[in-house]
Amino acid sequence: MRYFLDITYDGTAYHGWQKQPQDTSVEETIERAFGIYLRSQVNITAAGRTDTGVHARQMIAHFDFHDSFSDTELRDLTHRLNALLPNDISIQRIWQVNENAHARFDATSRTYEYWLTTRKNPFLQGKAPWIKGTLDFDAMNKAAAHLIGTNDFTSFSKLHTDTKNNICTITKAQWSAHQDIEGLHLFTISANRFLRNMVRAIVGTLLLVGRHKIGENEFQTIINGKDRALAGTSADACGLYLTHVEYPKTILKE
Amino acid sequence: MRYFLDITYDGTAYHGWQKQPQDTSVEETIERAFGIYLRSQVNITAAGRTDTGVHARQMIAHFDFHDSFSDTELRDLTHRLNALLPNDISIQRIWQVNENAHARFDATSRTYEYWLTTRKNPFLQGKAPWIKGTLDFDAMNKAAAHLIGTNDFTSFSKLHTDTKNNICTITKAQWSAHQDIEGLHLFTISANRFLRNMVRAIVGTLLLVGRHKIGENEFQTIINGKDRALAGTSADACGLYLTHVEYPKTILKE
Repeated sequence: MRYFLDITYDGTAYHGWQKQPQDTSVEETIERAFGIYLRSQVNITAAGRTDTGVHARQMIAHFDFHDSFSDTELRDLTHRLNALLPNDISIQRIWQVNENAHARFDATSRTYEYWLTTRKNPFLQGKAPWIKGTLDFDAMNKAAAHLIGTNDFTSFSKLHTDTKNNICTITKAQWSAHQDIEGLHLFTISANRFLRNMVRAIVGTLLLVGRHKIGENEFQTIINGKDRALAGTSADACGLYLTHVEYPKTILKE
Repeated sequence: MRYFLDITYDGTAYHGWQKQPQDTSVEETIERAFGIYLRSQVNITAAGRTDTGVHARQMIAHFDFHDSFSDTELRDLTHRLNALLPNDISIQRIWQVNENAHARFDATSRTYEYWLTTRKNPFLQGKAPWIKGTLDFDAMNKAAAHLIGTNDFTSFSKLHTDTKNNICTITKAQWSAHQDIEGLHLFTISANRFLRNMVRAIVGTLLLVGRHKIGENEFQTIINGKDRALAGTSADACGLYLTHVEYPKTILKE
């Protein structure tokens, strides 16, 4: 039987999602909790990876188990895993899916948010970096609009990764101000896939636009250049959140 | 010249507001930043103290300085202090007040909020404790209504403090659910003064009501008993926020 997991985590204390030989990862921490409760080795496969210090409001993963759980048993499993897991990882829900549903290959869209604050806010420490000085969010939004569409995004990719190509289809890329918290700004970006480090490289480059160091046209030139050296430095990991993973309804059996 | 400071801090890393011989306090951290920037020893006097790990969205303090600052200079001072101070302390505003205005003695009302979550939430770690099981917030609100008025609140006071009496006038004491964040509940309490540990002792006792371990009448009996041993254990410091300090408008010269 195959099950999907909906997971939330604060990534501050972890060396990213993926298992590491030395360091603590979110994946390993969840697999260990499963192992303790189910008394059997469970391997989980996620929609993607998040880097060291990056958070997730919704990460989706799948795992297989020989037993079929009732809805009550799945709720009980969720409760018990949450009691075992540290406070910075929470399982929102576990549900059965089609046997061949795949958390990574079947995902049609991923959405990230990048949070930053232009006003010093002690309660956003580790959640949204404090960016000093004035940012021109109108200019940043105009530049961000150039990201929409299907493009080779090598300029915003970590060098030397093993992907076959760097073509992604971005469907949303927009800055907005938080309604209640003064100075908090959110960048929402959706795509069929993301390259490693891509959102942080895009945000770092949009910050150059916001500070009027480069213009809208230069931002387009950076995209066209297909060269990581052209783009800005990556924005701080602590502001990045994976917020949504989308699947075709047919595989989810909800 | 006398100035008021409006301060926000995440208290997680501090042994409370007040200066300690060994441990790091918020007060000492702010005074050190003033000393570096103004090149003179500045003593700040706060509206009250917060205990180890307790936060403040608004703490008010006063300090004296021989120079008169213009509004521009005060904004500049605020900026520079924020650049010097760690990320978990922020000065919201500095403004001149009447020479005899006193941050502690002139405060007419203080408001605290206590935050807790009934749903595990990695992003509320250190901000709102996760309370497992179901809580009856209606019962907690009915009991909380008994707090309103002028009473001897010895039952919710830390033992062996040096206050002359334990009489406080509570004007608000109410639980509400956060509009946007599922499972987040806030207890708002306002009074002319608070005893040490008072809000956490009240919340700890209201949690007993919420779990149906004691009833509304027993809560009243605990108040009447004037004995700390009758009340529940103190709720975790990390959920407590000083949120507002009120002064007569006439002293503030705003």
